Amino acid sequence: MTVQYDGTDFAGFQVQTGQRTVQGVLEAAASRVIGAPTRIAGAGRTDAGVHASGQVISFETASRLGPSELRRAFNAVLPDDVAIVAAADAPEGFHARFSATAREYRYTIWNAEERTALGRRFCYHWRAFLDAPAMDRAARALVGEHDFAAFAGATRSRERPSTTVRTLFRLQCWRDGSRVCVQAIGNAFLPHMVRNLVGTLLLVGRHQITEDEIRAILAGRDRRRAGRTVPARGLCLVAVLYS
Amino acid sequence: MTVQYDGTDFAGFQVQTGQRTVQGVLEAAASRVIGAPTRIAGAGRTDAGVHASGQVISFETASRLGPSELRRAFNAVLPDDVAIVAAADAPEGFHARFSATAREYRYTIWNAEERTALGRRFCYHWRAFLDAPAMDRAARALVGEHDFAAFAGATRSRERPSTTVRTLFRLQCWRDGSRVCVQAIGNAFLPHMVRNLVGTLLLVGRHQITEDEIRAILAGRDRRRAGRTVPARGLCLVAVLYS
Repeated sequence: MTVQYDGTDFAGFQVQTGQRTVQGVLEAAASRVIGAPTRIAGAGRTDAGVHASGQVISFETASRLGPSELRRAFNAVLPDDVAIVAAADAPEGFHARFSATAREYRYTIWNAEERTALGRRFCYHWRAFLDAPAMDRAARALVGEHDFAAFAGATRSRERPSTTVRTLFRLQCWRDGSRVCVQAIGNAFLPHMVRNLVGTLLLVGRHQITEDEIRAILAGRDRRRAGRTVPARGLCLVAVLYS
Repeated sequence: MTVQYDGTDFAGFQVQTGQRTVQGVLEAAASRVIGAPTRIAGAGRTDAGVHASGQVISFETASRLGPSELRRAFNAVLPDDVAIVAAADAPEGFHARFSATAREYRYTIWNAEERTALGRRFCYHWRAFLDAPAMDRAARALVGEHDFAAFAGATRSRERPSTTVRTLFRLQCWRDGSRVCVQAIGNAFLPHMVRNLVGTLLLVGRHQITEDEIRAILAGRDRRRAGRTVPARGLCLVAVLYS
């Protein structure tokens, strides 16, 4: 299933005891619709406050309902900040997370002197004018297979990735009126990696570091040299790709 | 001042005792910033749930703060669902409502089988496919100066307009992916007029009435023949024009 959600009122995707999570409400919907406990896997374990327009989930079920009946039934019982966009039968052995070959994220900065009331849930407000073309040039220097340790967030030890090498297929930045957008497509992402990349690109956009220094930060593999983690609300999981 | 707001959690623009209104929070902000009670006039008295990206307000003040200082000070004390976009000194005698020569509204329909989680505050969900080009042709037939009694909502008697003649400068409709948008620009609008026009265009989009019947409904001046009032959440006051 392809899933859309407004992450504002969720403690992230992954189930946590006593918290409202996307996985939690999806599994509750599944158990109501299917009548049996159902474990759901998500392609991207988005953090608290992160949105999705194209998250992908998978689950096994013995339900006799077909994909479009399940889609309608899920939407009838899900809260209004989560919606199933599409549903399909998956091939044997498909897993939303392990079968994924790429993820696309979008980060949106509201770059204007005054804040936005209409976009407040989906943008990070940055007052000072950002040099988006410079951010774009710096972003493109990071495309490829690299050790992204400099952009890896702290995480609980049991979730620490075995390697910090990832492949960025695309990283670009552009201005659309008062919005500055960053698009990141990669095979997989380290915890907070997109938000740390954007935080570092912000330093370029403010001319606090040069476009070339971003290469040195990457090569240095030192988290302390990169920019800070920008807020979750600007981030959206746009799509998950499968081969 | 140009004002943006998410109307979801407001009982409309106009002050009402015991209700959270846009005018109410703006006047509370003004009294905090200026230190004196300030009566604010709005160009459009939007209903409960209606949004604005370009509402215009005016007020008289003896404050020594200039427009950009007032703008920043208002934004610092306003709740996050209201924001001042721009501020300027107005000429003597200017009144946001009485000086306005035109208002532009936008209505957004989410026309897809499944609802949207990300756009849920700003769209009206309509499942069955709408014929947007037919809606557009019907819409254009209503442009001009007409008696819009057929599209006038019920209202409290003291607010009943003295005439139901209004001029529509533009009424058009188009599809943008899953969104069907209606743009209405007029000198002024009767209560619920845009939402009643959209409700009637929906009948055309579903082929329940022909494009020509909309002219007969207008000419008949009978509210009961027009479509129903569509929900407030799809409506946004986009701009107010002054000569």
